[in-house]
Amino acid sequence: MSGRPNDGEAGMTGEIEFWFDFSSPYAYFAALEIEALAARHRRPLIWRPFLLGTAFAATGMQPLANMPVRGDYARHDWMRLARRAGIPFTLPAGFPAATLAAARAFYWLEAARPDLTAPFVLAVFRTYFSEGRAIHEPEEILTLAAGLGADRDHLRPALADPMLKAKLRAINDEAMRRGIFGSPFIIADGEPFWGADRLPMVEDWLHRGGW
Amino acid sequence: MSGRPNDGEAGMTGEIEFWFDFSSPYAYFAALEIEALAARHRRPLIWRPFLLGTAFAATGMQPLANMPVRGDYARHDWMRLARRAGIPFTLPAGFPAATLAAARAFYWLEAARPDLTAPFVLAVFRTYFSEGRAIHEPEEILTLAAGLGADRDHLRPALADPMLKAKLRAINDEAMRRGIFGSPFIIADGEPFWGADRLPMVEDWLHRGGW
Repeated sequence: MSGRPNDGEAGMTGEIEFWFDFSSPYAYFAALEIEALAARHRRPLIWRPFLLGTAFAATGMQPLANMPVRGDYARHDWMRLARRAGIPFTLPAGFPAATLAAARAFYWLEAARPDLTAPFVLAVFRTYFSEGRAIHEPEEILTLAAGLGADRDHLRPALADPMLKAKLRAINDEAMRRGIFGSPFIIADGEPFWGADRLPMVEDWLHRGGW
Repeated sequence: MSGRPNDGEAGMTGEIEFWFDFSSPYAYFAALEIEALAARHRRPLIWRPFLLGTAFAATGMQPLANMPVRGDYARHDWMRLARRAGIPFTLPAGFPAATLAAARAFYWLEAARPDLTAPFVLAVFRTYFSEGRAIHEPEEILTLAAGLGADRDHLRPALADPMLKAKLRAINDEAMRRGIFGSPFIIADGEPFWGADRLPMVEDWLHRGGW
């Protein structure tokens, strides 16, 4: 199908790709489940933070919380999903946050400390949505990464390094090229699934090998 | 919660309300399952066709199929959902269709032949999306309703009757007042659920009495 976000990229090799923006509540809820889902199907999990604002520019969308009527529904929905997941949930001041520093730090960790990528993703989400603390400043991200064991003195200058900036730009370009327009957005065996609601369908697809 | 689409209306009395537009593929897929879901929980099912265009005017949205990137995803998604449901599926010429005549006919049947409402809903969906035949002309809707046993000679003039027009306007107004912005949109025990993906969550909510 034309526009289908899969042809010839990483999705064909067995991994499950989990694309998301760190300021997406639905991505937080899905992130709490995606590792176990991948493990049940013995699939490697690839975290892919990107900047959803880039996608919105292409699709004419805007942050859900800013939309009339839909924003009210979303706020109600996030609270009940949090109750169901048994986690504290708050919409931090300034939501949605700028997630540039968090996304750049992720890709530095992916190269330098791949063992820390999953803990970092979950820690950023928890810090922001469960503890209600800011994540948009580089210093906040540095403290969070250092708390997990990353080398703060290496990460600080790296966050402003042209190489790392270019890496995140390439990731955003890849998202646009592959039609990844929302968060979370899961790709498994080349098949795209948009939304936290779709985890059962992803699971069914993997279980049956498509339909 | 402010903006929560439930307070003091029909949703509090035990029925499951199924709000939808006849030109919504996701509503078709959900309609195939909602009767059985309601029956499993011994709940009356209330069909509520409305005109989604009215909601789009309030939320700044537009038909999914017309949106860049998201439209491509949706077309792919509808085909795989149809494969999973085991039904033929096609996007008819002129999609999305004007559904004014179908919605008006529904509310006439609801008053005159309530036994025909469910068969009518499913027949309109099947005619449009599985057989690919037009549903926007009143004559097409008349033929379809007559095929189910409705009185064509009574229904034809009723479709242009001011009373019936006012009824559908009131339904659309109710949808806007209650924050019903998409299709399908399900309300159970005052709780709103948007999207065909949410049927498992509706079921879980009914089973556990909320969470």
